[in-house]
Formats: sequence, C-alpha cells, structure tokens
Amino acid sequence: MKFKANLFFLLFFCLCYGTSLMAQDQIIHDAEYYILKSQNQDQWNYEDKELKKKLQDLEKKHGTPPNIVYILWDDQQFGAVGFPHIQKALGYSTPNMNQLADEGINFTRMYSEPACTPTRAAFLTGRHPVRNGMGVVGMPHEFSGMAAEEITIAEVLSEAGYATAHFGKGHLGDIEESYLHNQGFDEALFTPMNQITSLYNPQGNAANAILGLHPEQYPEDPYQLDDPGLVPKGWVQILDGKKGELAKEWCGNSNECYEKMEAESEKRTLEFIRKNAQAKKPFFVEYWPNFLNFLLPEPQKSSINGGKVPNAYTRLDDFVGKVKETLHEEGVAENTLFLIMADNGPMVHNPPPGWGMTEILFSGGKGDFTEGGIRVPAIAYWPGTIKEGQLVGDIVHVTDLFTTFAKIAGAEKYIPTDRIIDGIDQTSVLLNGDTFGRRDYVFVYQGHELAAIVKGRYKRHLISDDPGVATGIGASFYDLYQDPKEHNPHLVPLIHTQGQFTRMQIRHELMKKEYPDSQNGKGIPLTGISNARPETKAIKTMVEEQMKLMPIDVKKYIEFDGSKMKVDGDWGH
Amino acid sequence: MKFKANLFFLLFFCLCYGTSLMAQDQIIHDAEYYILKSQNQDQWNYEDKELKKKLQDLEKKHGTPPNIVYILWDDQQFGAVGFPHIQKALGYSTPNMNQLADEGINFTRMYSEPACTPTRAAFLTGRHPVRNGMGVVGMPHEFSGMAAEEITIAEVLSEAGYATAHFGKGHLGDIEESYLHNQGFDEALFTPMNQITSLYNPQGNAANAILGLHPEQYPEDPYQLDDPGLVPKGWVQILDGKKGELAKEWCGNSNECYEKMEAESEKRTLEFIRKNAQAKKPFFVEYWPNFLNFLLPEPQKSSINGGKVPNAYTRLDDFVGKVKETLHEEGVAENTLFLIMADNGPMVHNPPPGWGMTEILFSGGKGDFTEGGIRVPAIAYWPGTIKEGQLVGDIVHVTDLFTTFAKIAGAEKYIPTDRIIDGIDQTSVLLNGDTFGRRDYVFVYQGHELAAIVKGRYKRHLISDDPGVATGIGASFYDLYQDPKEHNPHLVPLIHTQGQFTRMQIRHELMKKEYPDSQNGKGIPLTGISNARPETKAIKTMVEEQMKLMPIDVKKYIEFDGSKMKVDGDWGH
Repeated sequence: MKFKANLFFLLFFCLCYGTSLMAQDQIIHDAEYYILKSQNQDQWNYEDKELKKKLQDLEKKHGTPPNIVYILWDDQQFGAVGFPHIQKALGYSTPNMNQLADEGINFTRMYSEPACTPTRAAFLTGRHPVRNGMGVVGMPHEFSGMAAEEITIAEVLSEAGYATAHFGKGHLGDIEESYLHNQGFDEALFTPMNQITSLYNPQGNAANAILGLHPEQYPEDPYQLDDPGLVPKGWVQILDGKKGELAKEWCGNSNECYEKMEAESEKRTLEFIRKNAQAKKPFFVEYWPNFLNFLLPEPQKSSINGGKVPNAYTRLDDFVGKVKETLHEEGVAENTLFLIMADNGPMVHNPPPGWGMTEILFSGGKGDFTEGGIRVPAIAYWPGTIKEGQLVGDIVHVTDLFTTFAKIAGAEKYIPTDRIIDGIDQTSVLLNGDTFGRRDYVFVYQGHELAAIVKGRYKRHLISDDPGVATGIGASFYDLYQDPKEHNPHLVPLIHTQGQFTRMQIRHELMKKEYPDSQNGKGIPLTGISNARPETKAIKTMVEEQMKLMPIDVKKYIEFDGSKMKVDGDWGH
Repeated sequence: MKFKANLFFLLFFCLCYGTSLMAQDQIIHDAEYYILKSQNQDQWNYEDKELKKKLQDLEKKHGTPPNIVYILWDDQQFGAVGFPHIQKALGYSTPNMNQLADEGINFTRMYSEPACTPTRAAFLTGRHPVRNGMGVVGMPHEFSGMAAEEITIAEVLSEAGYATAHFGKGHLGDIEESYLHNQGFDEALFTPMNQITSLYNPQGNAANAILGLHPEQYPEDPYQLDDPGLVPKGWVQILDGKKGELAKEWCGNSNECYEKMEAESEKRTLEFIRKNAQAKKPFFVEYWPNFLNFLLPEPQKSSINGGKVPNAYTRLDDFVGKVKETLHEEGVAENTLFLIMADNGPMVHNPPPGWGMTEILFSGGKGDFTEGGIRVPAIAYWPGTIKEGQLVGDIVHVTDLFTTFAKIAGAEKYIPTDRIIDGIDQTSVLLNGDTFGRRDYVFVYQGHELAAIVKGRYKRHLISDDPGVATGIGASFYDLYQDPKEHNPHLVPLIHTQGQFTRMQIRHELMKKEYPDSQNGKGIPLTGISNARPETKAIKTMVEEQMKLMPIDVKKYIEFDGSKMKVDGDWGH
C-alpha cells in the first residue's frame, strides 16, 4: 500500500513539475520547496555549479573539506547581539560576537523552533520536530527522548569521515538511545536535560523552596502519602560518553558540578579543535552552553545592565573570541565555518527584575509562534569564503543548517531519503550572500500543533485569539515588515492571501500523509551508564514495581505517546 | 516679594553647595543640575578648560566659530535609523544617515518631548514647554503660539553674529509673534502648523471624506445651522518671511504647494549653507522636513517595506547625504556641527497597513511618556572634532542642544538669566564622547502634566494605570536597562528609590515657585501677512463680529489660557 501511494505521489509531481526534478532532488523535501524549485531551477542550477567549483577549489587548497563549529545558546531575542546600538541602550556588550558579525554574515531572518528541545532536534535531524515527536521541551524522567531511528548531522558527517563532538547542554532526552554519543557523536559531554536541573540540587531548592525537590529540608509532612511523589529520584545531571561505549555520570548533581561543566565543555571544545586541526582531520564540533543556572544570582558587575542573562553573555562572548582565536592559531580559520545562534526567543518576555530579558523588535518569546519566539540572533563566519560585513535578510530555518552543513562537507549523499527533510540547502546564501536564499516559507509549530505559516513578508496565524480566527473569518494575516509585532491582523489588505495560505497548508498536510510523523523514542530513563548510582539503577525497578500494583502493562506505560499531549505554559529552559 | 524670595533661594543654595557655585552658573538651571554640579564640579571645571582650548584652537584654524546644521524630522522610533540590522528586518534602508552615524556619534539616550510642537519649542528655547505654554500640539486657528518673550536659539546666535535660517515645518503657532522670522531667524520658509493641513485641501478631503473640511463637495445639508462651523476658513499653509518684514503667503494651500515646499526647503537649505560658507560668515540653519503628508500614498517602490514612512525616509536620507556633500564641497565640514534627530516616537504605535511605523525597543510612541514616546534617533557629525564611530549612552535632552549650541558658538552670554533654562551644556559629551554627559535626569511632561521622572537607569511613572499608582502605593518604578518597555513596575526591588524620586519632584516644583511657568502667546491668527487673501484678513473681522453676538470681551476670549486644558488622545503630527 505504502509503495503504491508513493508511486502515485511521484507521478503527481512528475506531471506537475517535469520529470527531471525528482531525479535531481534525491532528498524528500516538503511540498513548498518544489513550488520554489520549479520557478527557480535554472538560476539554482547555475549557482550550484559555481558553488561546487568554489567548494572543490577550497578543498584543493586546504586538503580537507571544511570544518564546522556550531555554538547554540539559549533564549535570546533577535537584536540582542550583533547590534552595538541596542546593547548600548540596554547596558551590556558582546564585542567578540559583534565583531564576528562585522566580519561575516549577520542574519536578520534566522528562524528557530519556539523552544529548546524542538530547535535542537530540528538542527540535528534537519526535520521539524513534529515529524519525530520532539516538539515539546523535555524534563527529567519523561521516559522519552530522540529516537534511535533519527539520522543526525553527526551521523551524516561521521559517514563522510568527520570527527564529531558535542559539549554542553543536550536536552534531547534521558533515555539511552537519545544520548548524544549514541546519536552519532564520537564524544559528548552533555546534560540529558536542561538548566532546570540546577534547581534540583539542595542549593537550588533553598532558593526556590516551593519546588520541594528536597523533602529532607522540610519539616515532616503529616499529610504525605506518596514517596517519592513528584520528586525524580536518581536523576543525572551530566553524562560523558564515547561512541559505542556506555556513558559515565560526570562529577555529580551538585551546583558545583553544574558550574564546573561549563568550563570543562569550553576546554574540551578548544582541545577538540586543536587536536583535529593538527591531525588534519575534518571536524564538526558543537558547543551548547548551559549559559546560566536558575539559582539566584551572585551580585555581579560584569555589565551595567546587571541582569543574569546579559552578565552571562560576557562569558559566552569571551569564549566566542577564544574559539575564533584558536581557529586562527591552528591555521584552520579559512577552512572552517563558524556559526553561532540562539535556540529561541527570550524565556521571560517581559522581565521581572534581575533577568535582563526583554522583547526587542518582535512580540513574544520562548514557546510563542510569534516572531519573538522564533527569530533569533545568528552569525556566520568563514574568512575568505563568507564575505565580511553582510546583513542577510533571507529566510533561513534552523533545519537548513543540517542540509547545508552536509552539502559543504560533501556528505549530502548520507542524508536519508526515506523521510521528509525540511532543511533546504542554503550554501548559496552563505557563499553568495543577501537575496541568494532558497526559502520563502516557514511552517511554525508550537509543540506539535501547526500554529502559523510564514510566506515571504506575510504570516498567517492558525491558532490564537486574534479577532477573526475565533469567528471563522480567518482574518489573522500580518505583514511582517509593517507590523513586525503581529499586533494588528490585516483583514482587507491581505484577505486575498487566504486561499494561497490554505493551499500551502493542504500541500503540507498531504506530504504528511505520504510520510507520516513518527513518535519520539521511549524507554526507562538513565540506563546505559557504567557508573550508575544505585539510586539511578533503581529507576527501572521502581517503575516495574509500581506497575505491578495496577492493571497496566509496563511496556504500554512506557511506550504511550505522551509527546502529543497538549502542554500549555511550557517554558522549560 | 519676588526679590526677597529669590534672595532666600540663593542663600539656600549657597549654604548647601558653596558660594562659588552660583557665580559660575549665570544660567538658572533646574534644581537637579545643582545636585550634579556639586558632586562633579572639579571634573567639569577641568574638562571645561580643555574644551575651551579646543574650541579656541578650532576658531583660530577656521577663522569663525563653528556653523550648525540641524535637521529635525517627525515621529520616528529609536532604532529606526543608524541600525542597518533592524532596517534589514523591516525592509528599508537609510545608507547616508547610517554612514553619518558611523562617522560621528549615534546617541542611544537622546530624549525629546513626547510630541512635535513641544519638542520644537523645547529645542528653540532650551526650556521644557510646560514653562511657556507650548506643551500641546497646535492646530490651525487656536489663537495661540510661541510667545514673543521667549528667547530662541536663533536670537541667541544672531546676537553672536550668526546668519540664521529655518526651512520646513514650523508648528510653533499661526499668530504673528510666533512666526519664525519673528523669533530670531533672518529668513524662514515655514508651515505655521503641521502636516495635518495636507488634509485641508480638496484632495485631502476626498481621501478622508469624514473630515468634511470642504462642504462644497457634499450634498447640501438640510440640518446645517452654522457656517463655517468647524471649518477653519482663511487658513494658510506656508509662510515666507525675513527678519523685520511682514510675512508672505507662499504658493497656496493646494497639495501641489505642499509638495513643492519640500523641494524649495531643501534647495534653500543648501543655498544658505553655500552662501554663508563662501561669505565666511558663521551660520545656523535648521531644516525640518514636512516629510510626508496625510493623503493616501501613491503606490511606491522605494523600499521593500512599502510603508509611507519608510518610503519617505528615502528622500530624507538622500538629502542628508546632499547636506554632508555640500559642507565638504564648501570646505566647511570640519567647522560645522551637523546634528540630525527625530522629534518624538512613532505617531502610530501599532501600525495599520500602509504606514510602516512600529514600536521597536520601547513601548508607546507619539504623545506617550514611556520611552517609546521620548527616545529618538539622533546623530551628530563633525569631522575632526567629533570622533567617528561612537555610540553614546549618556542622557541628552533636546533642550541641551540650545545650551550646547550657544556654548560652541561662544554665545552663552546671550542666554537669558531671568528664567529657568532646562538645557545643560553638553559640549563635553560631543567632544569627549561616551560617559562625559552632564545629565542623569529627565522630567517627562505629557502636555502640561508631569508624567514621569527619569534618573539614570530608573524611571518613576507619576500618571498611569500601572498597578500601585491607583492604590496609592506608588509602585511604578522601572529599571530601563532590564525592562526597557516599562511593562512590569518593580515594587520591592526599587521601593527604596521612592523617597529620592519624591525629593527630586519637590525640588523641581520649588524651582517653579521661584520661576513660574508662563503662558504661550495669544492673538488673532494669521495677521502680519503682506499678501493676505481677503479670506485670511476676514478672520479678524469674523472673530470680532462673533463676539458682538455674545456677552464676552473679545480680548478675554483671545487671551484665555486654553493651553492648560486637558487634551486626551492628542496625536497631531
């Protein structure tokens, strides 16, 4: 049945867009891509020939395909780095990141997913997280994580002979198959979950007593009936792993370990660059800082602003400087794409004192489908190949990095062709600059729900309390140049776009019928650890024991697809 | 009584701050200045000596004191020019203005008043408009305008031998004493009122039929009892005047004349620069563009954004480039301070289609006391004297330009000393740069009501529906670095500032008891025009005739202080 349906589908496309098209595009893209391709293929084919030559010349010169260094940090609004003027007004500075922007591309329309787990999964797989159940921010002991079946950029680049490493925040799940060294990285020091675990240790609890994670700190509760109740016992903060080996718990769950890990990740990142540069082996390394924890801040003086977040930028900024310096010292700067970006908008939209987060140009932040949630700072640096001083206004989506990194590494052939890859090859925008982008659309998911569609300068909201949507008129159309905050839905001036948006959505849903969404991975948390504590090992026993008490099959319990449950107010870090 | 009170006041200051202080400061500042002066006088005195020498050296080199060119445009939010990154995201560009910023100072805390008449009056007199009844946006036939008693920067600079000229929007009132050539300018082509008059001609009426300014276009109204009713008959769009002479109506009231005036103002500005540069006469010229009119736009292609306002920036940007070019061609660039800025935040906060205005970093716009209303783009250029590539985070208020321009022109001694001058000499921030400002406060008036107080990074709202204010707790304190949008009043973290803010306000009010606010000028509109149309001349007769019909003295009617009447929803251009 599946086979027949696919054949029919291929036929449909062949009839519409010409027989040569599918052959050229082994990768299965979303429908919208084929619309663009059909209209621009002459230009794109021409460009691709030039780009191929450029990349070949580059490899001839340097002896290896280009290295890739990728820094992805949390919760930052577009405008917060790379704009000295805005920073002056907000009382902080990131001189190294701003200089990187001046010497490369400063993107003005880099789209992420609206939260961290989804964005990280999207980058790693080149797919919207709705396609693999990774659309919701994970918390410890959810019995799920990124599925083994997903093919990550680390796997793709490994196939092409790259050394690969991940250091820092992971947040892809705490089940064994989702561990980063089990997802294609040669080595990984990572947190299975996010910064929220900084509250899981006793100091965190003291600062935020209501969480009650450490009942031993409280007077005895005469009403307590359940132990451990909502307290995740045996959780693990940091794992250290090598491809093909069991993971090791690293350092421990204390706040000291949390902080120590940041320095260790920085150190390993630089060492990894040095080691592979010297060995003349192409490498891909990602550093995803934990950035800051949730404990109340020490009084800090590192920026006038004084907020936790702007203060933390200082450290990140220093490190960006160090990476750049290291690339130059090791003589690989001209053969390395260095790309840095944030994973979604600010966690706190309208800031309470002490955080230093705020909306800037767009409305909303983390978790929102408005531009404030999904348009992020992004900078690309590649001296000699990326022209300096560029502002690029093309739409780029974080999934595009998957496809583009594969392309520049000569690893496109390892991209799986049995599933939809949302990522579009944007090598052209990197190497040719502004207006050479190949995407004019973004399907914006909030969790696993399609929330909005962007097409060029226009955007349609699909879920919201905007006037019109509720009454079925469907009036939620926005011009993002003229109303970047999406405050005033335009009925009359944009109503003519309704049919077009609806057809885009239909095409998108039809593709899903052919290539259906799958679930995330399911399992007992925190298995596969060689030095697991008894408490950690006991998780498995605890679940099995619990299940004996009620008439539910353990397997079903674990494999239940909780990822599609509606989660409101989700703002995990 | 007045004299005694002043003596007592002087004594108070002498006791507090030392006897030398008042002698050094002939100018009467607001109380807050003396607080700052007492703590910084050693530093300031030291700087002043250096600055004096710099200015003397400069005059020696060029033979004249510096020229000043000042462009002030309407309704633009901080961030809209000088930030290529933001512009890219909004789909327009102002390359010349951005380059000017790169080659000089780009101010991040330039404060204006919240609307155009008030900001223009503040600049011209160095005084908050509450002090002279100019706090409300004027409309045709309000029988008022800037009073003859006010001493403008044009009068101050004229005394020091400068040639002075004004071209473009005036908006200081349509009574004779407020005409710009009667307020110190040698020559002036100006609109007595604002861009709203572009709707007063028949085309404007056609586009916005509800205004009903042209009853001749409507079917006869069987209910009409009053002629002219609310229609201002005999109004004048543009005046042309020379110091000491009667004004002439220029061109007429048509939309063609409105548009012709823009080109004429640009032409005269450049000619004025050339003429005086060649005559080696120091000059001060201000060009205040009308910028755009209120008629529905022609379809324009000058920016991707497509909005009326971003399209209009294109013209302004070209002209800024021409001014700079002219200064260089005439060899006076190094002896000219060229300062450009907007008069208040965006007129339309959350834009309907077609305008292209939007909030960026701050909340609110024209008419608001939030930062969005009063923080504006501002750029200063003076090659050789102002260091290039500066971002300046010091607070500067538009009144400071009055005092600073007088200072650099060697005309400080012509600043009146019988009234409060809010403007502070900020020569130091111009010549020494970031952190060399001399102001840490702004009293923010909305109309004639004190609405908020800024002190450094903190701000207190005095009128608003913020929680706390209504209940009398006075909780409306904001940290402008951490909460630039003034969304979340901070109670606990800032409550310790309440007493300090209250004392600032008391000092400010006490100064007003010594130097009370005065009214704006009053009179019959549009007298003093040599080529007045019969319709215009008839205004006087009409008022006198009307007054005969009721038991009110014409004089009292005209002189009634309407400026303090509460005006809500005031958003005149």
